[in-house]
Amino acid sequence: MALIVQKYGGSSVGTIDRIRNVARRLMDTQAGGNEVVAVVSAMSGITDKLIGLAHQVMDDPPERELDMLVSTGEQQSVALLCMAIADMGGKAVSFTGAQAGICTYGSHTRGRIESIAPARIITALQEGNIVVCAGFQGMTPGGEIHTLGRGGSDLSAIALAAAVKADICQIYTDVDGVYTCDPRVVKNARKIPVLSYEEMLEMASSGSKVMQARSVELAKKFGVIFEVRNSMNNNPGTIVQEENHAMESLAVRGVSIERNQARVTVSGITAPVAYTALILTALAEAEINIDMIVANTAHDGKARQSFTMNMNELGAAQAALKNVLPQLGAEARLETEAGLAKLSVVGVGMRSNSGVAATVFRALADAGIPTGMIATSEIRISTTVEASDIEEAARVVHEAFHLEREN
Amino acid sequence: MALIVQKYGGSSVGTIDRIRNVARRLMDTQAGGNEVVAVVSAMSGITDKLIGLAHQVMDDPPERELDMLVSTGEQQSVALLCMAIADMGGKAVSFTGAQAGICTYGSHTRGRIESIAPARIITALQEGNIVVCAGFQGMTPGGEIHTLGRGGSDLSAIALAAAVKADICQIYTDVDGVYTCDPRVVKNARKIPVLSYEEMLEMASSGSKVMQARSVELAKKFGVIFEVRNSMNNNPGTIVQEENHAMESLAVRGVSIERNQARVTVSGITAPVAYTALILTALAEAEINIDMIVANTAHDGKARQSFTMNMNELGAAQAALKNVLPQLGAEARLETEAGLAKLSVVGVGMRSNSGVAATVFRALADAGIPTGMIATSEIRISTTVEASDIEEAARVVHEAFHLEREN
Repeated sequence: MALIVQKYGGSSVGTIDRIRNVARRLMDTQAGGNEVVAVVSAMSGITDKLIGLAHQVMDDPPERELDMLVSTGEQQSVALLCMAIADMGGKAVSFTGAQAGICTYGSHTRGRIESIAPARIITALQEGNIVVCAGFQGMTPGGEIHTLGRGGSDLSAIALAAAVKADICQIYTDVDGVYTCDPRVVKNARKIPVLSYEEMLEMASSGSKVMQARSVELAKKFGVIFEVRNSMNNNPGTIVQEENHAMESLAVRGVSIERNQARVTVSGITAPVAYTALILTALAEAEINIDMIVANTAHDGKARQSFTMNMNELGAAQAALKNVLPQLGAEARLETEAGLAKLSVVGVGMRSNSGVAATVFRALADAGIPTGMIATSEIRISTTVEASDIEEAARVVHEAFHLEREN
Repeated sequence: MALIVQKYGGSSVGTIDRIRNVARRLMDTQAGGNEVVAVVSAMSGITDKLIGLAHQVMDDPPERELDMLVSTGEQQSVALLCMAIADMGGKAVSFTGAQAGICTYGSHTRGRIESIAPARIITALQEGNIVVCAGFQGMTPGGEIHTLGRGGSDLSAIALAAAVKADICQIYTDVDGVYTCDPRVVKNARKIPVLSYEEMLEMASSGSKVMQARSVELAKKFGVIFEVRNSMNNNPGTIVQEENHAMESLAVRGVSIERNQARVTVSGITAPVAYTALILTALAEAEINIDMIVANTAHDGKARQSFTMNMNELGAAQAALKNVLPQLGAEARLETEAGLAKLSVVGVGMRSNSGVAATVFRALADAGIPTGMIATSEIRISTTVEASDIEEAARVVHEAFHLEREN
């Protein structure tokens, strides 16, 4: 007998029929001899509808009241899901985030999970219930309702899985798992059966939008094994767990791509010290998320720094940097370039397999694809290419590492 | 400076515009130098919509999950109302029933208020907030959400007013107050400025559907002065409070009418003992609410009992009583009559003013209206009449006591 946490997103519970489908899956899992905790989002569209109602009242509603309003979405879906289970003859009990013991801190609309007191869930499981918890929400010790921001239901599921010491946390979504590359781009991309947390993190942060990085980080922190699965079939998904020796045999696990990238370069920097701090502070204060950072010194002694970011943030970045240019030197100036994309190859095996970078850039060169900025981590190599080259780039790199093959 | 609790029903917050209207009224009340606690129902239609969704899932949803689902309605309206107050530059904070400290016991979908811990409300008032509480709901000490059943928001308001020691609890509705009779029936009916709890209770239980009896009883128990007012104007309403000497000067305060009544009579009872208990138990087990009870013994020594009830319950009452007839004697039999109505005159002054009953029945006799069963309490006289006579009966009795005049 295993203790399984299953998380279903808004589209998985988007209609009464889909709620019945989820109820059936939970019943089947329980019938397989398991204890089952479900974590559920609001029915798709409900959250947006509630936010729309709030904006009918005022342009910038207080975040505390937004949390009060929006958190009703999951409360409705957990109740309806329990009814569907009861209708099939099952036994279920629903909990709000607060009732599930999810204790939060931080700001309204982007609360953070402080701790989970799972006593009530455990009692309900012992009584033979399928326990259905509202994702995306929790309560402060002072009794204030928090929502957790984007990807919050995944976070709730991972945190609950850690708290109840679940054997596995299954994240149900509309894809079969994590692929070696986006199958819409690389036709023979394969589903990856097992990934390490680090690989999943690098995949998440470099464009494979299956899960938010903070959920993966939480799973890693508490050693929660999770599996990304499809709520519309019974195919095995991608299991994400602690790195092990077997994973290292493969140099590259997958190729991820990220579109809509832009580059900003500050050149001609002559300010003697702390110019990096000055630039990064200006960008942080403007709340711009920068991704790759490349810094070097030109042969004339003037420094040069480049950053990539989402194209939507390019205007704001330019505005923020313009203000600090005078402090960077008389000849400091900005260059910008939009219409870029980013290609990343990821794999823990990179640490012990040399020549990965060489293979990437050889493949791109052979295909006549120019590369731009390059950034690396221990288990990832990323490069920018022209947006128009990204699909071809993904295909040739995917092929260079034979990722289409069963390993 | 007064501490005022204002309760707004579903139709008062039924649209965003109406929510703005309520926000404005709350702001005005606070601007008048008062501390303000609002108690709010779900936007009209929402509760029914949620129940409809539940019934799409299953015919007879578990009541615990219904409470979970339906309680989101008020949570949404309190959040939206606080946003509307913020939009007007005011300061407000919303609370669910649980956050407002409303502690309940009993069954799901018809919870009862056990106690209220108002510390959080009082702190929020001291911080200058308009405090907006979800009506109709509370939480058990074990953390289960309860709704309070029909009229539950009125109950929440009265109970909160008692807990925070409010100077007055204003119940906003779509009428200007309690009238001497239904103005659609008696054109010159007048709004009653002041009523005692007992009079309000008799008016409530005899057909003036402004408030449920259990809310009035709660107000009486805790000495909460409340006022029934119209949310669409600023007219003074009807104040309901402890009986005082001045109220006794008037024999009759108002005339209330109740339609759709039916009578069941059991005659020929020869069972020697306990037949009343037998009959009432049978009706109670069938969950039939009986109203008037008349019992007497015929000159032949056989007993006879009559009951009135809502016409909708007549069939169930017949079925329930048929089962016990054999135990009531060989000649026991049932008679039923539908198409009745009930007229009641109410007033604490009846205790010290003799001749009220004589005036009632003289007026009816002069108008040629036959009366049926009669029942009395210390401050009420009720009689059944044919349904077709009820409007004329109300008019002649109203006139007989000169209720159209300012007193």
